[in-house]
Formats: sequence, C-alpha cells, structure tokens
Amino acid sequence: MAGKALRLGMVGGGEGAFIGAIHRAAAALDGDWRLVAGAFSGDTDRNRRSGEALGIDPARTYDSLDALLAGEQALPADERIDALSIVTPNHLHAPMAIAALDAGFHVFCEKPMALDLAEARQIAAAAERSGRHFGLAFTYSGYPLVEEARARVARGDLGKIRLVQVEYSQGWLSQAIDRDGNKQAEWRTDPARAGLGGCLGDIGTHAFHLAEHVSGLRVSEICADLSIHVEGRRLDDDVNVLLRLDNGARGILKATQVAAGDENGLKLRIHGEHGGLEWAQMEPNTLTLRWLDRPTEVLRAAGPGLLPSTLPLMRTPSGHPEGYIEAFANLYRAFATRIRGGEAWFPSVGDGLQTMGFVETVIANAAGDAKWTALPGA
Amino acid sequence: MAGKALRLGMVGGGEGAFIGAIHRAAAALDGDWRLVAGAFSGDTDRNRRSGEALGIDPARTYDSLDALLAGEQALPADERIDALSIVTPNHLHAPMAIAALDAGFHVFCEKPMALDLAEARQIAAAAERSGRHFGLAFTYSGYPLVEEARARVARGDLGKIRLVQVEYSQGWLSQAIDRDGNKQAEWRTDPARAGLGGCLGDIGTHAFHLAEHVSGLRVSEICADLSIHVEGRRLDDDVNVLLRLDNGARGILKATQVAAGDENGLKLRIHGEHGGLEWAQMEPNTLTLRWLDRPTEVLRAAGPGLLPSTLPLMRTPSGHPEGYIEAFANLYRAFATRIRGGEAWFPSVGDGLQTMGFVETVIANAAGDAKWTALPGA
Amino acid sequence: MAGKALRLGMVGGGEGAFIGAIHRAAAALDGDWRLVAGAFSGDTDRNRRSGEALGIDPARTYDSLDALLAGEQALPADERIDALSIVTPNHLHAPMAIAALDAGFHVFCEKPMALDLAEARQIAAAAERSGRHFGLAFTYSGYPLVEEARARVARGDLGKIRLVQVEYSQGWLSQAIDRDGNKQAEWRTDPARAGLGGCLGDIGTHAFHLAEHVSGLRVSEICADLSIHVEGRRLDDDVNVLLRLDNGARGILKATQVAAGDENGLKLRIHGEHGGLEWAQMEPNTLTLRWLDRPTEVLRAAGPGLLPSTLPLMRTPSGHPEGYIEAFANLYRAFATRIRGGEAWFPSVGDGLQTMGFVETVIANAAGDAKWTALPGA
Amino acid sequence: MAGKALRLGMVGGGEGAFIGAIHRAAAALDGDWRLVAGAFSGDTDRNRRSGEALGIDPARTYDSLDALLAGEQALPADERIDALSIVTPNHLHAPMAIAALDAGFHVFCEKPMALDLAEARQIAAAAERSGRHFGLAFTYSGYPLVEEARARVARGDLGKIRLVQVEYSQGWLSQAIDRDGNKQAEWRTDPARAGLGGCLGDIGTHAFHLAEHVSGLRVSEICADLSIHVEGRRLDDDVNVLLRLDNGARGILKATQVAAGDENGLKLRIHGEHGGLEWAQMEPNTLTLRWLDRPTEVLRAAGPGLLPSTLPLMRTPSGHPEGYIEAFANLYRAFATRIRGGEAWFPSVGDGLQTMGFVETVIANAAGDAKWTALPGA
Repeated sequence: MAGKALRLGMVGGGEGAFIGAIHRAAAALDGDWRLVAGAFSGDTDRNRRSGEALGIDPARTYDSLDALLAGEQALPADERIDALSIVTPNHLHAPMAIAALDAGFHVFCEKPMALDLAEARQIAAAAERSGRHFGLAFTYSGYPLVEEARARVARGDLGKIRLVQVEYSQGWLSQAIDRDGNKQAEWRTDPARAGLGGCLGDIGTHAFHLAEHVSGLRVSEICADLSIHVEGRRLDDDVNVLLRLDNGARGILKATQVAAGDENGLKLRIHGEHGGLEWAQMEPNTLTLRWLDRPTEVLRAAGPGLLPSTLPLMRTPSGHPEGYIEAFANLYRAFATRIRGGEAWFPSVGDGLQTMGFVETVIANAAGDAKWTALPGA
Repeated sequence: MAGKALRLGMVGGGEGAFIGAIHRAAAALDGDWRLVAGAFSGDTDRNRRSGEALGIDPARTYDSLDALLAGEQALPADERIDALSIVTPNHLHAPMAIAALDAGFHVFCEKPMALDLAEARQIAAAAERSGRHFGLAFTYSGYPLVEEARARVARGDLGKIRLVQVEYSQGWLSQAIDRDGNKQAEWRTDPARAGLGGCLGDIGTHAFHLAEHVSGLRVSEICADLSIHVEGRRLDDDVNVLLRLDNGARGILKATQVAAGDENGLKLRIHGEHGGLEWAQMEPNTLTLRWLDRPTEVLRAAGPGLLPSTLPLMRTPSGHPEGYIEAFANLYRAFATRIRGGEAWFPSVGDGLQTMGFVETVIANAAGDAKWTALPGA
Repeated sequence: MAGKALRLGMVGGGEGAFIGAIHRAAAALDGDWRLVAGAFSGDTDRNRRSGEALGIDPARTYDSLDALLAGEQALPADERIDALSIVTPNHLHAPMAIAALDAGFHVFCEKPMALDLAEARQIAAAAERSGRHFGLAFTYSGYPLVEEARARVARGDLGKIRLVQVEYSQGWLSQAIDRDGNKQAEWRTDPARAGLGGCLGDIGTHAFHLAEHVSGLRVSEICADLSIHVEGRRLDDDVNVLLRLDNGARGILKATQVAAGDENGLKLRIHGEHGGLEWAQMEPNTLTLRWLDRPTEVLRAAGPGLLPSTLPLMRTPSGHPEGYIEAFANLYRAFATRIRGGEAWFPSVGDGLQTMGFVETVIANAAGDAKWTALPGA
Repeated sequence: MAGKALRLGMVGGGEGAFIGAIHRAAAALDGDWRLVAGAFSGDTDRNRRSGEALGIDPARTYDSLDALLAGEQALPADERIDALSIVTPNHLHAPMAIAALDAGFHVFCEKPMALDLAEARQIAAAAERSGRHFGLAFTYSGYPLVEEARARVARGDLGKIRLVQVEYSQGWLSQAIDRDGNKQAEWRTDPARAGLGGCLGDIGTHAFHLAEHVSGLRVSEICADLSIHVEGRRLDDDVNVLLRLDNGARGILKATQVAAGDENGLKLRIHGEHGGLEWAQMEPNTLTLRWLDRPTEVLRAAGPGLLPSTLPLMRTPSGHPEGYIEAFANLYRAFATRIRGGEAWFPSVGDGLQTMGFVETVIANAAGDAKWTALPGA
C-alpha cells in the first residue's frame, strides 16, 4: 500500500488463461496497481467478455496492442496507464515489449524474455532508448527467503561457494496433452510460439536465474543433455546440465516436465566452505542452513534471525503462510516503487539477457560434440 | 473475478494494524471487492493518513463508524458500500456489527464474534431482522484442503468418527510483551477489550471452529484447564480441554500462546473407524489421509484426487503454494457470491454463536469443581 | 563391545512373539550379552523349537521359569546366567521378577512393571532385599536424542518449563482384532493378563515415563477421560489426560490405539520460557529446538552441537540412521555396564512405581466425579 | 534367527575403526553369525586388544590374514570359519578376497570391490574357480523400501522409466581433515589405498549401484565432471555425471563429500510414464510414490500395501524405525541363507564389476575431451 495506485494495462490473459490472472492478483494484492485497460484476447468476443468480467471500462478494452497503445497515449497523462503487463505466449514478448517501451510505457513481461538472445537484445535496446523500466517475471526471486538466501551468500555466511544445485521438476507434460487440446501445453511445445527451448525455456530459465541470482555467481560454461521423452513432441521436455561457475564452483541444473507425479519442484541448494543452504519453492517459507560445526538452522518467514532487508517482503506474521502470488506481488511492488522513483530490485533486462544466453548455449552444446561450451560474455 | 466489484467499507485497520491489511488484501485479491470507504482510526490524523495511503476518497474517510454509516446511507444506492468489514478489537465487534446491520449493510467481522454469548445473540438478532449477511473471519475454514477434509468426512471416507484432536500453538506471548508497548498484545490481554477469554477467545475459538466444522460433529461437553503462565497477565494464555462429541467421539483441544518458539501451529487430526486425516495450517496445501488397510495418501492443492467441489477454492496450479491471504480471500469471495445471490459457504452467525458458547462453557468449567460441563444447546 | 559378554536367560519370547526377538537383537547388538538359557514357551514343543532355533544348549532350554532358575543356580557361577529377561504378558511380570531376583539374578523386564501398584511395590521390595539390578524396558528413553533433550532441559536451556505435551498414537486396535485370533491384541485387551489399563498400561505408561523423564518434573495431579471405542472391548483403547506438574507446568497426555492409520506415533513437546523442544519417535534421530529469539535449531544424531554425554549412545556417523533396536540396545548396554560395576542410567524400580501410580490414578479419576486426582506421593 | 549360527572371521576392523564394528553388529543382530576369529590389525598389540574386547579366543586372534587362513584351515570343518569379512582399506580388498576364496572360504567384502576393474575381474575369477560366495557391502540395497522400490519398478508400476536421479551428498571432507590426522579421511584420499576414485569410489559407487539396482536398467554412457575443491587433495571430492541408460532414460548422478553441513544424503528418484518414486536413506522407512492421475502414496516399513516379498526384510512393526545396521544385517542374513543353500539376493560379483567399470569410465571421461563415454560392456 503506497498512496495512489499506479495504472496497469495488460496484453493477453483473457478468459481461461492462467498466468494473466496471477499477474492481476499479484498487482492488486498490495493496492499498488489498478488494472484499467487491456487487450486480453485476439478473439473479439472473448476480449470483450474478459474486460467486462474484470470491470474494465469498455472504452479501454482494446482489440489489439496497437489499439491499446494508441488509445492510452491519447489519454491525459494522469489517466493513461503507467505500465503494461505482457502475458502472451513467448513469441509475442519481444515485438510487444518493444512497441510498448517505444510508446513510452513501462513494461512488465512474462518470461522467457524472448524467443532468442537476438530478440532479447532488441528489447534491451528499446528499454535503453526509451528510458522506461522493464520488469521480467522471474517470480521465484520474489520470495522473501530467496532474498534472505541471496543476501546471506553475498555477505559470506557460507564462505567461498563450491557447489550449486538447482532443479525444477514438473510432471504435467508426461503425456502428449499438447496434442489433446490443452492450450497451455500446446503453445509451450510449439517452436514457433515457445522459442528455441521447450522445458528449457519455460522452466529451465527460472532455475538458471535462481541459481545465478542467489549464488551471486555467473555460469561460465556448461555441458548439456536435452531430450524428448514424449513421442512426437518437437521441443525438449527434459534438461540435464553440468555447470561450471566463474569462481570455480561446480553445479548441476536439472529441469524436466516429464517427472510424472511431480508438481512444481523448484529447489536450490548451495554449499560453501562452511555450510550449505536449501530452499524449495513448494515450502517457500523455510530456508534451511546446514553447518559443518553447529546445528542446522531453520529460518522461517517473519521468524527470528532474518536480515532486516528481508522483512519488508512479508505481509503476515510468522506461521501464516505466504505463497506464489505474494512472491509475484513483491515483484510488482518493487516495479511500482522504481517507477515512483524509489529503490527496489526486480528482475530486469540483464537477467533476461543472461537467461537467453543460457538457452542458446545449452541448445548449441546439446546438439554438438563439444563437451563444454562457454556462455556469451563468460 | 466476477463482474463489477462490490464496494467495501472498513472500520478499524488503520496504520500499523495487522489484520486490517490482511482483510484488504484478501478482498482485493480476486477483484470481487473495492475498498471505497473507511473509519480506520479514532485518531483523526491517523485516520486521514490511512485513508490517503489507501487511495480512499477523503470524503469517504470518516471520523467514526456513525459518520460512515450516515455518510454512506446518504449516497445513491449504486455508490454506497455494499458491506462493512469490522477489524477492531473484540469489544467493538457487537455494537458496530449491530449498527451496520441495522443501517442495512452486510457485515464481515473479525472473530471472536463478540465479548460473550449474550452479545453474540444480539448480533444474531440484528442479522435476522435486517436480512443482511453476516460473515465471520474464521479464516482457516477458507483453506481448500480444509474444505476437502470436511467434505470427505461428511461423505464417510473415514467411517464413524472416533477421535478429534485440534491444537493451536503460538509462542508470541511467552514474555510480558503486553506490558511493553506491543499494541497487538496489549488489547488481546485486556479483559475489557478482548472479552472473557485471552488465548481462549483469540485462537481457542479458531481451533474449536475448525474441529466442529471439519468433523461435522458438535462438542457436547468439555472439561477444561485454563492457566496463566506469564506473571501479571489477566487473561488465560494456555488452554487445555478434553472434549466429548455428540456422536460419542472423544477429543482434545489445546490452544496456547506461550509455546515459546512456536509460530502459528494450528493442526487438526480426525480419526474414524477406517482411517485418519491430518491438516496443518503452516503447510496448508497438503492433506494427509492415513488408512488402516492401504498406504497413506497425500492430497495436494490442485493435485489429482481432490473432490470437484474443492477445485474452485484454488487459483494456482499444483505446487504453486497459496497461503493465508488466499484462504481469507476465499471467505471474501464466498461472501460476495452470497450478496450477489449465489450459493457459497462462509462462517456466519451459527458458527459465531457456537464458538461463544464454547468460550463461556470453558471459562465456567475451568473455574469450578465439576468435571464435565455441557455446551449451550448440547 | 566391552570384554567378555554377560550371559542372559530369557523367559517368554518363543516362536511368533514380537518383543522377545527385539530383546534378543538388542542384547546381541553390541556384543555385551550372549543368550545362553531360556524358558521360551509353556508349550513344550514350541519351547524346544525356539531354543533350537536360537542355538541354545538343549540342557538350558527349560520347561518353566522355576526349572530355569533351579538349573542355572546349579551351574558354576562363571557359567550360569547373569541376568534374566522377562518378556511375557504383563500378569507374569511380578511373580517372575520376584522369583528371579530372589534367586540372585539381575532382571530386565518388559513394561508395564506389573498389573498394579501393589505388585510393583513387591518387585521393588525384592530388588531391595536381593541387591540385584532391575531394568525396565521403557525403550524410548534409550534413544540418544531423548537423552539430549533430557540433559538440555535439565541444564536450563529452555528456562522454567511451562508446557508438556506427550502423545502416543497407534491405530492397530481400530478393529476388533483381539477377537479374531491376533495373539498380541488378545492378551493386551484381557484384564487378567494386561492389568488395569489397556492402552493406558500398554503405551500410556511409555508416554508418561517419557514426559517425566525428559522434563525432569513430576506430574502432581491429573484429570482423565478413558474410553473404549471398539464394541465389546473390555479395556480402554483411548486415553486423554490433562496434567498438572509439580512446578506449575501444565500438560496433556494422549494415548490411543484406535487412531486408524497411525503407526507408532510417540511424540514429546516441552516448552519453557525461552523455547521449546520436539522429538518424535518415528524420526528419532532429530531433535528440534525452537526459540523465541533466534532461528530453530535441528540437532541430529551424531551431528554437531550435541552434548558430550549423548555421544556414547550412538554407533554410526551422522546420517546413518539408528532406530528402535539400537535404542533398546542402549538400555541393555547400560544394564550390563551397571552389572559390571560401572555407571550408567537405565529405567528401573522408581520409574516403574511412578508409572504404575499413574495408571491407578488415571483409572480412579476416570471412574469418578472428581475433576483432579493427585498422584501417589505427589 | 535360523538355527545354529555360522562362524565368521574378520580381517581389519580393529580398535577405532568404523566399518568393522558395523559389520559385527549387523552379523550379530539376527543371530545368524558368530564372530570367532580375526586378524583385526597389523599392529600386534592393537590386534590382541581388539580380539580380547570382542571375546575372541586368543588362539584365533591372528597376526595376519595368512595366519588366519592357515589356522582356520587346520581346524575341523565344523569349527573353522564359514566366511571371512574384509573390512580393510580398499587396496587390500582384492588380494585378501582372492586369498580367502582360494582357501575355500566365503567372502563378504567392503566396497568398492577393488582398486580398479582389472583387480575386480581377478576376484570374479577367484569366486568362479572356488565356487564360494562373494558378498559386497552395497549396504543401501539392504533397506526394505529399496527392495520395495526395485520390485515395483520391475513389475511396471511406473511404466517405462524415463528419468533416474541419484545423489549422495556428504560434507565431512569439506576441510582438509585428511591432512590433520583423521584416519578415515587419510586413506580415503590416498590414491595408493583408496584406488582410482576418491569420492567417486567411496560413495559414487553406492549411488551408481543403487540407481542400476532399483531401476533395473544399465547405464550405457556417461559424461562426467570430477573436481577437487579442497586444496592439496589428490583425489576427487565432488562428482557430477550425466547418465544415459540402456532403455533411453536419462539421468544424473551427483556424489560429493564437500557439501558442508550435509550428513549422508543418499537419495534416489525414478520417474516413469505414470509416476515417480523417491527414497532417501536418511529417512529410510518411507517410500514415496507420486502419480500423474491420483494422490501421492506413502509406503511405510511394515505398513499396509507392501509387496509380500518385502516383508521378511523387516524386524519391527510399523512405526518402530529400523536403520542402517538393520539394512546391513539384511545383507548378512541373505549371505547366510545362500551359504546354507537357500535363495536370497545380496550384492555380489556382478554388482562389483559393474561399479568398477563405472569408476574407470568416469575417470577416463572426466580426463578427456569426449562428451560421452560408453561403459564397459554397454
């Protein structure tokens, strides 16, 4: 809650979509944002119904992004949207983000940033020339105990980092539901709409981002095995990667969408000379710290022992669980804070470029005979 | 998300308060409610600042509940608030709820319903005569897996119920913080503002409600031990109760606020002839079912095997945790649905009367020599 | 492993019995004991077969305890048994223990000590006059992390103790298997062989012992509800007790054998002014310490941070789980150490008297109208 | 317990050694074995003291393996040892095993089988020509729920296997304790005594064996990254391997001894088309089965739903935890059963050859530029 709410527009996220509703809930949660405009669907009827259901002024329920940008630019500055949320399939992220930035709006975009690194660089250029903020929905970095983990690694609690293990294990693509009418599955396994990677782009990027973000290290080279387990699928559904990090640490990244029975098992472990930490998204309010020379410590959201810098990321007292939407809301709040001129971190252009570089490198390595491939810029 | 948002007013919940912010987030989450009016504090400056921070029209930031009710009644029907949230200390619940109901507004009230059973009955009468809805914030009944548990017990999965164990274990009142300036602690331990029970009224009522709600049984008689562990405290901070239920089942209710180190440990276990269930609020997306004759089953929010009636209570796919605010939002959503004429369950007058009867019975039993005391109406 | 093994005799524990095999494994584990004689069954054939299967000299496979005691007394001192293990149904504990003590043998006896307090006092007298050691199989006190918990409470880590919660939840008697030929169930629900209490004597005594042993407190008065949930059963199968302890602490003891689906859920929680501890038998190598003012600590068997006095109770490095048999073996090892003249703690006469007093008090209280009943000696 | 105990000799395992004591406890637990002879240490005094402490006849406490073999062969057949346990550092496994087999004794040997594959093949040849049994202490395959997992995969519960993930995470070598007088650490990091691999041979072999044993698949090719994180160390302390299995499944094997704060974290996950299983050694009595289309099931040792073939591997009722020593004892029991002519599985020559092939392949791959290397025989 921070004074008058900022005005948000949205492209995508019509009836039946998943992630658009999450963006709206996250934006609404703390009262920082009010959704006032949208182009929710290319289907005119569906678009209209979505706008109505959301209580949007019909005049601001636009048929296309172009119409939305034009319509909003035509409004007085204190009425038009401050920022646009992009919650479409991946192939639209880049053109839409660039158009919105160039039209003068801040952009909060679903991940992955773009179809490939080249596109991502074009977004970066647009953000640069427009001077607008670009936020990227690496949601998991919005969890309070992820920030606690990051800050503790950064101040050296674990000593020099030696091991980084990150895994993201889902099972929902274990069957060929992408050919049975599941919309979510359909576009995510279609190279034209999903981009170069399947599981790699969809959740491998989350895992990679989390690993670099919390460890404070950069992956310097990787060795990857990509595979497709469901017959007829065109993009990878299983990703296994050995990591070498820039300080000499070693790591493993595993992402899969064919671990039948698994839900949304994103888990990060980092070990240094003196101890290790573990965080798992499915029980996000716990951060476990294990030590060579003293008992394991369990940090809990809003519990004793957290760093002061973590506290603002929580809304409820200890033991009242916050979850995925609240983590997401932390990113929207930080995004609002920056637009208002304050200081706050959220995933942005640099995070996006780094993950797109990872995607391309993994694909190249997996397709070739070379054991190790360096990341761009590494 | 359900068409045009209903309009909400709030009394209490100004700057620095805890539960008011939760109500606002819960009401906002799904877009069912828009906060448009409030009397947030008896302190004029604090009230004004709170209204501003929340983006409330200054004309609808009222100095008192009376002013709010009068002001809103004076507005056109399609502008005035639909319902009032009451998030004040306990002693104000009854007079405010009655005033608001009598003024024609639906009321969503923090628990406990009132200071005592007599007051609660006055609210019940006001709800009856006004024909307005009265919602009561027994938040934990809003969790999806609590509903799953209730429905499974109701359809007989466990067989005849034999054992009910409920515990609510907090530690935040382990020290005399109520005399050290902690506002939350202060009023909760003051008989004039908290009511007859301390821990009993604050969290014992939650535990009791959950036990009856999920088991589908009524507690018929109790045997209680109330105690005060922190010197100088005037209300109980620890509650131990033996339960006998109306079908012959036996139970235990434990509520405490002096379990140093505990967070918000609300946990329910119910056993029947064929198996048992366990749900714990601190990991609310899991419901464990244990069976005499087959392996333990773990049901997960949005996972396979849930009853269809539970599904609408979740917003995210399996493995994306929802928490306390989302459970709260389920109650606000049900409240809105009923106001709009739909069908939905939320805790209401009957739940409130039953819990206030429990509070009075426990206090009477604990003060006397009789071993067992029957509940009102049992 | 401690030099030449002591010689053990056993009464009871023939083919098909459960607890006798556990005693043998526990005694054998560390090489402290060698089983050399037994009267395993009143059925001559079964007794002989049992002795053979165990590799016992046929001459020392006796038809009765009397024969065993006489036979062993007739052997040279360096051949005869040092101690006798009694693993029969409850009603035989007292006469056999007294006979063996009076015959000059140390005795290690299954719990409960006896059918009632009067019998237990006769054992106590026999132990006193014979000068022999009497060990009692309160197995759970043999777990390393139970000892760690006890020692930490004793040195004041938690501050003054306020809350003691102990529960022992089993489900194996949820059906009337005691009338379907299950031998274990049969005698445990027969008052003539089990004693005054059913569930109360069988596992309520374990729970009570653990609570007093770890808290270092004595229960001064109790208020109890005993019930029978399975039709036709003659002894309690569910026990709920409110506890008041001698320092003013309050507690709850719950023991049940009709929690369908539960296994062997013995769990202890103790809270003091500064924090609380939790130990659960089904994951016995973990002791959780929660604190008001700092992060939760998780102590692990053979891990860092344990008290030096706990270390000798573990055989394997951290992370190599030890279990029930190892806990049992710790008691047999301590028993051997004391027989050899060393210092070691094991549950003995005092523990037995205290638990039998508890059993009798609970039964008396549950049968009467008085709310609170004092324990003998309290 | 199975009739007269077999007679066991032991080489290695004197005072202060770890694994020798575990072998003795495991052999003793069920009464199948009696330790009657040993060459416990090359240090004469230490050997003598060890024998005395274990209650071994001084005449059968030998100064060397040669003396032991000669001495035992000179005894009557019904007195001499049936089998020899080898619990020395790795470099002695092969020569000792071969000598004992050739002398006509069955051998139960610590892992890894040998320093390299060539040596392992020599043992295999000796076992072949002698007709004696050779058991290998892949302890973790002795856990009941590992067997349950194996049998369920074998009968197709999970469908075609797609993913295999195994990790073995320890932290005890996080510091340079191998140069600070820790005997265990010292020889394990010395190529002359440990063999080709450090962490790879010590625990990587366990992980590999478990993965193949439970999945029923063979690893066909691997891509590995070996590293040394502690300065001055001569053998790997961290192992990351991508696996390709012979049915097309993909996998990851992670073994490390520098995960500071980790204990003995061996964990296996296998996913097939319909579901996945998870087993973790540190809570070994639980096997979790997750399904695409129904709730997660948790199988518990001695609980309902286990396969009949698993039941004989447990000694205690459900909820009475068994651990590492009991798993070990299951191997010793199976070894005894086979010696007596019965049917039982224990890890043997084939398992050893396969793991030694893995060690050599990993080392070769990690040292070279090729991405994938096939395993011997794959």
